[in-house]
Amino acid sequence: MNDLNYNEKGLIPVIIQDINTGEVLMLGYMNEESLELTLSSGEAWFFSRGRHELWHKGATSGNYIKVREILKDCEDNSLLIKAEPTGPVCHTGNRNCFFRKLDDD
Amino acid sequence: MNDLNYNEKGLIPVIIQDINTGEVLMLGYMNEESLELTLSSGEAWFFSRGRHELWHKGATSGNYIKVREILKDCEDNSLLIKAEPTGPVCHTGNRNCFFRKLDDD
Repeated sequence: MNDLNYNEKGLIPVIIQDINTGEVLMLGYMNEESLELTLSSGEAWFFSRGRHELWHKGATSGNYIKVREILKDCEDNSLLIKAEPTGPVCHTGNRNCFFRKLDDD
Repeated sequence: MNDLNYNEKGLIPVIIQDINTGEVLMLGYMNEESLELTLSSGEAWFFSRGRHELWHKGATSGNYIKVREILKDCEDNSLLIKAEPTGPVCHTGNRNCFFRKLDDD
């Protein structure tokens, strides 16, 4: 589908960016099925590498990612989704997952 | 180093974002050595999965990525680098690698 280059595990990395603020919210992975569900529902679905299952973001937390635009990179190796989150994206309760500097350790 | 979760190939995905415009420029991969080179030089070094070698972004094109801030995600699985590019980031000459919509095919 869409000539994307999924990796050897059938996954493609997906950057989620807040379409209004430009804030990078998270990086997730989709397989072909989660991308199809994302396209059909208008909300982000991922593939959980830890749990090995499809994951409708927000199904547990109530914080969904409403997809507004999907872009692919020059080599079809990754996606950039511009979206509107309905609440904090990170499971920690932070607005986004990138709230620590590398040298915070 | 820094307790990052490199994948089974020793790589971690890195989102490059323009610190001034908020534009997502590219997604690359670093191994521990390229991250060390990035930290010591202040310019982004990646690991090329196709060529299996360290890659100093800009060494060929002249378009370097000047690192301003490095953030890690909540699970230490990916990095977000806020940076100033010295020229177009994409090898196609585009300012960034995400210039095509998914449905452009």
